[in-house]
Amino acid sequence: MRLLKDITKIIDPNRVIYGEALQAEYSHIWKMHEGLTALALVKVISTKELSTLMRWCYNNNQKVVIHGGKTNLVGSTESDKFELVISLELMNKIEELDPISRTMTVQSGVILEEVQQKASEASLLFPLNFGAKGSAQMGGIISTNAGGLRVLKYGMTRQQILGLEVVLADGTIIHSMKKIIKDNSGYDLKQMFIGAEGTLGIITRAVLKLTEAPKTRMSAFVGMKDYDQVVRCLKFIDRRLAGKLSGYELIWQESYEMMTGPMYQKPPVAHGYSYYVLIESLGGDLENDASHFQQIMEQSLEMGLYEDGALAHSESDLEWFWKIREDVHVLVSQGPVDQHFDISLPIPLIGDMIAKISELIRTLDGVIHCFPFGHVADGNIHLIVLKQHAEASLTNKINDIVYEPLKNIGGSVSAEHGIGTHKKHYLAWCRTPEEIALMQNIKRAMDPKGILNFGKIF
Amino acid sequence: MRLLKDITKIIDPNRVIYGEALQAEYSHIWKMHEGLTALALVKVISTKELSTLMRWCYNNNQKVVIHGGKTNLVGSTESDKFELVISLELMNKIEELDPISRTMTVQSGVILEEVQQKASEASLLFPLNFGAKGSAQMGGIISTNAGGLRVLKYGMTRQQILGLEVVLADGTIIHSMKKIIKDNSGYDLKQMFIGAEGTLGIITRAVLKLTEAPKTRMSAFVGMKDYDQVVRCLKFIDRRLAGKLSGYELIWQESYEMMTGPMYQKPPVAHGYSYYVLIESLGGDLENDASHFQQIMEQSLEMGLYEDGALAHSESDLEWFWKIREDVHVLVSQGPVDQHFDISLPIPLIGDMIAKISELIRTLDGVIHCFPFGHVADGNIHLIVLKQHAEASLTNKINDIVYEPLKNIGGSVSAEHGIGTHKKHYLAWCRTPEEIALMQNIKRAMDPKGILNFGKIF
Repeated sequence: MRLLKDITKIIDPNRVIYGEALQAEYSHIWKMHEGLTALALVKVISTKELSTLMRWCYNNNQKVVIHGGKTNLVGSTESDKFELVISLELMNKIEELDPISRTMTVQSGVILEEVQQKASEASLLFPLNFGAKGSAQMGGIISTNAGGLRVLKYGMTRQQILGLEVVLADGTIIHSMKKIIKDNSGYDLKQMFIGAEGTLGIITRAVLKLTEAPKTRMSAFVGMKDYDQVVRCLKFIDRRLAGKLSGYELIWQESYEMMTGPMYQKPPVAHGYSYYVLIESLGGDLENDASHFQQIMEQSLEMGLYEDGALAHSESDLEWFWKIREDVHVLVSQGPVDQHFDISLPIPLIGDMIAKISELIRTLDGVIHCFPFGHVADGNIHLIVLKQHAEASLTNKINDIVYEPLKNIGGSVSAEHGIGTHKKHYLAWCRTPEEIALMQNIKRAMDPKGILNFGKIF
Repeated sequence: MRLLKDITKIIDPNRVIYGEALQAEYSHIWKMHEGLTALALVKVISTKELSTLMRWCYNNNQKVVIHGGKTNLVGSTESDKFELVISLELMNKIEELDPISRTMTVQSGVILEEVQQKASEASLLFPLNFGAKGSAQMGGIISTNAGGLRVLKYGMTRQQILGLEVVLADGTIIHSMKKIIKDNSGYDLKQMFIGAEGTLGIITRAVLKLTEAPKTRMSAFVGMKDYDQVVRCLKFIDRRLAGKLSGYELIWQESYEMMTGPMYQKPPVAHGYSYYVLIESLGGDLENDASHFQQIMEQSLEMGLYEDGALAHSESDLEWFWKIREDVHVLVSQGPVDQHFDISLPIPLIGDMIAKISELIRTLDGVIHCFPFGHVADGNIHLIVLKQHAEASLTNKINDIVYEPLKNIGGSVSAEHGIGTHKKHYLAWCRTPEEIALMQNIKRAMDPKGILNFGKIF
C-alpha cells in the first residue's frame, strides 16, 4: 500500500488500477478473460510522466511490465503480483503526417490500423500488415519487430522506423525522433530497442517511414508438384517483377485442402497438388501492370514452373484469394488445442525439412493435424498443430521436433513473434552461448537492476 | 620490442610489419603517401588467429586500430605510435554464393567491386555502389554503414546484411552468420556493429543479401525552376514507378554548370535552371519499362513538374548522364583545397537551408566555390567547398555554417561517412547528451578497456 501511495503521487489516482478492478477489467493478453495479476496497472499520459515514474521505480527496485495492445503471442506481457504494469494505451495520438518527408509521428499507443488509415488518406502507405492490426499498438509492434504479409517487398518493422523516443530503466529520456533516412552520426541507438521486447527501454513515440501508395494490385494462386518448382518460380517471377513482388505465400497441400474444404472458401486451383502459392504484385502502372503480370504468369506456366493457376480478375477475386490465406482460424478450429510456430530456415532446405517435421508430428499420439504454410520468400514458415489435449509432455515433444533441426542449419525458433517467456528454453538452440552472453551484458549495462520486463527473453 | 616479440608468437613474422617497412609501404588512408604511424601492422588470416591476438591485446591493454580498404573519409583509420594496426586485407575470400537463398558469404577483406561482379555473374545484384568500390573492403563498408547511389530503392548497407561474425575486444567470437531474413530470437546483435566504426568489435565475415538483377535501366535529366518542383516531381514519379525509382539525384545550378562546363561533359539539359535532377529507374519488364518511363516523364512535364528534360536513349546516353553526376573530381579540381560535407536534413527544408548555407559560405574570404548536390530523396546533401588555403580558422568557420543549422531541425552532421576523429566535435550538435551517454555506456560494456579504435566517434 505504501508503494501504491507513492505511485499515486506521480500518476493521477484515476489512472492507477488495482485490486478487484484490475481483476475485473484487465488481462495480460488480448481477448482473454483471465484477470491480471500485478501490483497495479498505471496508464501514463506523457513521456515526462513516464520518466518520473521510472525514476521512482529505479530508486525503489520496482519491476515493471509494459502493455501495448496485448496481442503478443509469447508471454512478453505476463506479470506477477509484485510487478507494476505500465499501459501506454492513453498515449494514442498521431502527432503529425508529413507528406513531403513521407513520415508519420505517433505515440506508442496508436493502433496499427489507424496508422494505415491515416497514411492511406494522404495516398501514402504504411506497409506493415498482419491479423492483429485492429488491436496491436505501435510501441509493442516496434518492440517485437513485427513482420507480417509484406516483408518481401517492404521489410520488417525495423525498416519502417526512422526515429524513436524511449524511456530507460532509470527514467532517462532518449530522444532520437529524426525524420531523416540516413544518419551515421555515432551508434544507431534505435536499432537496440527495436525487437528487444521491452527489456532495454520503454518506447513512447516513433517516426514512421511511409511510402507512396501503389496503384495496382495483382494476385494469382498456383499449384505446384514439388518444392523445386516453388523456388524456381520465385526466382523467375521476382526477377521479372523487379521490385513489385510483394507476396509469395506458400501453403502445403493439407493446409490448402482444409482452407478450401467444403465448409470454407471454394478452391481457386483444384485440390491434389503438393504445394500452393499465392502471389501478389503491387505496382504503379495502371495501364500495363495487369497485362505484364498475366504475361509473366503465362510464361512461367510454359516454362513448367507450376502446374495449374488462377489469376484474380476482380476486387472480389482478390478478396477471395487472400481470405483463404489470412483466415488462419479455419485451421485453428480443427481441434480443441492448438500449438503455433513461426520458425525461420534457409530457403533451399524448407521443402525437405518441413516434410520431415510434419511427418514426425503427425505420428505422435494426441496430434490431430499439422498445418504448414508461410512466407517462403522470407524463409519464414508457420506451423499450426492441432491436439486433443494441452499436456506438457506432448507440447514439449512437438517443440523438440520443430526446433531441434534448426540447431545446425542457421535457423531461428522465432522469425516474428519473439522469445518472451514461452521460448526462453529454446533461445540457446539458435543463438550461441557467446551471443547470449553479449545480450546479457547489454541488458546489464542498460538495466543494471533488471526492472524492465524481467525474465523475458532470458 | 617485447610487444613485437609477443605478437610474432601469435602472427607469422612475415605478416608483422614495423619500422621502416611500415613507413615505406603503408599509410592510414587510401592513395596517400604519408608513412603509417603505428607500433606495427599485422595482417591476420583467420578469425581464430584474430581472436587469439585480441585476447593477448586485451590482457596487455594494447590498443588496436582496424584497417580495411582505407577509403574512410573521417579519420577512422588513424593511429598513433603506440597502437597496433590490424589489417584484414588477407581475409579476402568469397566463401559462397547461394542463388536460392540469394546470399553471398564473404570475409571482411573482400573488395566491393568483386562482390558486385560475383553477384552479377549469377544474375543477381548486390546493390551497394559508390566511387571507392574498387578499394573499399566489406568489413569497413559494414562498419561505416555506407550509403551511396541506390539507397532510395535498396537501403543502406544495414539493409544488405543478414549475418555477421565479429571478434570482440577480449577475443570472444560472436558468430551470427545466418542466411535467414527474419530472426526475432533475442537481440539483433549485428545491428550494433553495423556503423559502429570498429569501436565495438572487429567484423571478420558477413552474409550479404542479394536481390535479383534488374533487366532494364532508364534515366532522365531534368531542369527545374524551384525546389517546389523538385519535391512535387519526386512524389509523382515515385508513386508512378512504384518501387522502380532507384535514383533521384539533385544537382544545384552552380554545380551542374561546372560539371557540364566547356572542359567537361556536354550538358544534356541547357544551363540556366535553378536545379537539375538525374532520375533513374530499374525494372524487370523489357517490353514496357521504356515506354512507361517516357510516359511518366511526359506527363510530369505537362503537369509543370519540371521545365526541360532529356531522356537517355542508349547505353552511351546512360554513361554520359551518370558520368556527370559521378565525376565529383571535376568539382574538387576547381581549387587547391577542398572541404567535403555529407549532411542529412528533412526533405521539406533542403531548398531554403542549402541556399542559405551556400550563400554564407561564398561570402567568406578564401572561399572559391561552394558546390551542393546530393541524394535529395534520402534527405542527404553533399557540399564541396573549394578554398584558397587549409587554415583551421576558415575550416572551422565553414563547419559552423554547415552544422549549426542542423541543431534544431533534426538533421545529422553525417549521413554516410561517419564521425571518426574529424567530426567528433560536432557529434553533440546532432545527438542529445543522453544519446551520447548511452553510446558511451554501451562502448564501456563491450570494450571496458577502450582498446578498439580508441578516440573514434567520442
